[in-house]
Amino acid sequence: MLTSACNTSAYTFEIAPVFVMVESSVIEKTLHLVGFESDNSEGLFVPGGSIANLYGLQLARFYRFPETKHEGLYAIGKPLVGYCSAAAHYSYKKAAHLMGIGDKNMKEIPIDNRGRMIPSELEKQIQSDLANGMQPFFVGATAGTTVWGSFDELPPLRSLCDQYGLWLHVDGAWGGAAMLGSQATRDRLLKGVEKADSFCWNPHKMVGAPLQCSIIVHRKGKGLLQACNGTQAPYLFQKEKLHGDMDRGDWTIQCISLSYLGVIDLKLLSPGGRRPDAFKIWLAWKHIGDEALRSRVEWSLDLSRYAAALISDGGSSGQFAGRFELHHQPEYANVCFWYIPPSLKDIKPSFGPLTDDQAFRLSQVIPYCKGKMQKLGLSMITFTGEYNFFRWTFANPHSVTRDDVVDVLKDIDAVGRDFVPLPIS
Amino acid sequence: MLTSACNTSAYTFEIAPVFVMVESSVIEKTLHLVGFESDNSEGLFVPGGSIANLYGLQLARFYRFPETKHEGLYAIGKPLVGYCSAAAHYSYKKAAHLMGIGDKNMKEIPIDNRGRMIPSELEKQIQSDLANGMQPFFVGATAGTTVWGSFDELPPLRSLCDQYGLWLHVDGAWGGAAMLGSQATRDRLLKGVEKADSFCWNPHKMVGAPLQCSIIVHRKGKGLLQACNGTQAPYLFQKEKLHGDMDRGDWTIQCISLSYLGVIDLKLLSPGGRRPDAFKIWLAWKHIGDEALRSRVEWSLDLSRYAAALISDGGSSGQFAGRFELHHQPEYANVCFWYIPPSLKDIKPSFGPLTDDQAFRLSQVIPYCKGKMQKLGLSMITFTGEYNFFRWTFANPHSVTRDDVVDVLKDIDAVGRDFVPLPIS
Repeated sequence: MLTSACNTSAYTFEIAPVFVMVESSVIEKTLHLVGFESDNSEGLFVPGGSIANLYGLQLARFYRFPETKHEGLYAIGKPLVGYCSAAAHYSYKKAAHLMGIGDKNMKEIPIDNRGRMIPSELEKQIQSDLANGMQPFFVGATAGTTVWGSFDELPPLRSLCDQYGLWLHVDGAWGGAAMLGSQATRDRLLKGVEKADSFCWNPHKMVGAPLQCSIIVHRKGKGLLQACNGTQAPYLFQKEKLHGDMDRGDWTIQCISLSYLGVIDLKLLSPGGRRPDAFKIWLAWKHIGDEALRSRVEWSLDLSRYAAALISDGGSSGQFAGRFELHHQPEYANVCFWYIPPSLKDIKPSFGPLTDDQAFRLSQVIPYCKGKMQKLGLSMITFTGEYNFFRWTFANPHSVTRDDVVDVLKDIDAVGRDFVPLPIS
Repeated sequence: MLTSACNTSAYTFEIAPVFVMVESSVIEKTLHLVGFESDNSEGLFVPGGSIANLYGLQLARFYRFPETKHEGLYAIGKPLVGYCSAAAHYSYKKAAHLMGIGDKNMKEIPIDNRGRMIPSELEKQIQSDLANGMQPFFVGATAGTTVWGSFDELPPLRSLCDQYGLWLHVDGAWGGAAMLGSQATRDRLLKGVEKADSFCWNPHKMVGAPLQCSIIVHRKGKGLLQACNGTQAPYLFQKEKLHGDMDRGDWTIQCISLSYLGVIDLKLLSPGGRRPDAFKIWLAWKHIGDEALRSRVEWSLDLSRYAAALISDGGSSGQFAGRFELHHQPEYANVCFWYIPPSLKDIKPSFGPLTDDQAFRLSQVIPYCKGKMQKLGLSMITFTGEYNFFRWTFANPHSVTRDDVVDVLKDIDAVGRDFVPLPIS
């Protein structure tokens, strides 16, 4: 509300430095958390994780092939190819389409049973692409995949990137908040992130701001963002200021702020919303404090483990015995599980592939439960994947208790207990 | 403020249909104003004019070369090339860089003395590029250039696009609001816009909303936006909904809204902010009404003409005689002019090139005046171009009177009258 109020009257130079300071301090904090040295690093607020991944790709391409800025991809002489895991966010492929690389050339590398990109598979693919005359340039790792909450192991990916001259970007849109947790959490989930070339995360996730913004940082030299996206001639700088002023709105804050960060004109990819986002996050961060944020993150992970234990053990009093099956042991804040109503008590999805008939029957359970819970105004949990499993995430759960977790499982059991599946037709 | 208040609690399905309806009605209105037939047209809110031009380019590429989505630019076999005028917004070039086309391959076509792209020069360039093995695909026209407020003539550009199979996009970020004016204004400035392939404008400009958003519409078939940017497999649709839900935030509104418009997943390019923007514009539009908007636009143009007349004629009582020179006769809401202080009364910038010494002295005048006016809290007008001319724009001037125009000129004269230039060193 505060930034909204400012919006109507803040089009003066005088107020800009405040926002600049705020934005810059959130980015400095990010550099510190990631472990990038501030003398060769810089960053930017962008509107969402998808755009942040697009930035990662564009920086990677410009860093290795700066001639593409003016000449286009044909200047390279062979098609670019990038890599992400089969569980990565789809925005990597969308960015590859937009950038003229083609989404087929953002290749999905197989994942292991913990949902992590398999480095040996990556190397095989790189070698095969090189043999086929392609030009590998980018690995897009994921810190916290959407469904499983998996974290790609960064050190082996870094080694391969060094060996083959590729840029390593880490998409921390969902899992980057692990940086705010304890040292042990960080070591377990984000080891080696300080050696990535670029990294993005959504700082508002854990501070509870209802936003759609991300921060992208890189450590390949101050000025790279400007060189990649900025205008270089003084004439153009002048021209751009004018555009900003009267044609595209809000120039003072956009341009001053970006100049300050070493980026004169990134308006193409950083449209409105950057400034108030930074402001809201900064206010919330100041208000909550580092120590409380650490507790929040650890509490998320604690609740996930607690839920997973209830699901696999059936609860201390055995009240859920046989009613739930865990999809996999959670590493982060995603708990994936099936509910097994009494009518399907012989189906064990976590023990291996089901028959078609079993699959058909089990797949009906979660949509049924979810629909019923929604109608009753109970909690909403999404579902996805094999035979439709519940995907329960604990993002910013500072007001959620262990008892709440028990209650949700009770609710699922209550609405699902009498479920009788339709047979396969 | 209203949407900001909603933001904190609007993450439910129930509220989405309202926003969907609002967004869809603003887009329908745009289609009607442009003259696109609604059965083969569709549109989208995007965060700013630069992104809208990027969409125009991406649609153009996908429409003609859909294989580039999966295979990338190398599938075409030769480099793409697009065209805009030398006065076009720089975002065309930025988009060409991002898309792998290269900003040198977004070629700037010379302009005539009214600031309009010269069709014969465009054709010469197309033929030369074809002869050099390039693949022309796109013409980016401008309705209302930033500095002069010029409007490219669309019918001859349409003919060339038909002849050579190119997509015609019209950037109406600044001048598109002429659609809201009288039929005569529309005929004079936007003739032929209904035959463009895509068009974008900033609907908030004339309704006075402090936003950074644009609408892009095209008439090349419903579903093109989805085919270009969307995910097609049902599996991916499901996957994307989940991403939206938990990973990238706010899925209900984003996805439902986009599905409704025939676009399942454009999140890559339509991040947060779309929904409240549409809502604010819709509220303001409803509040102001079509007839009042028409008056506002016509009043802008009237004030521009009035200011230009005062500047060139010296005012009815001759009070400004010899003190101002008009850069060019305004066609839209931009008035470009020099102030000529008594100490420089022999310099006539509009009569032809100045000597270096004259140029050096005249160039000091406007920065001096602007600085002094800013310190005194008087009006702020930007400057640019040859010898620094004032660029005065009348956007949304519903509370500005003719007397105000006179007063601004008086202020300039008052602060600038005693100016004595430094000689060239």
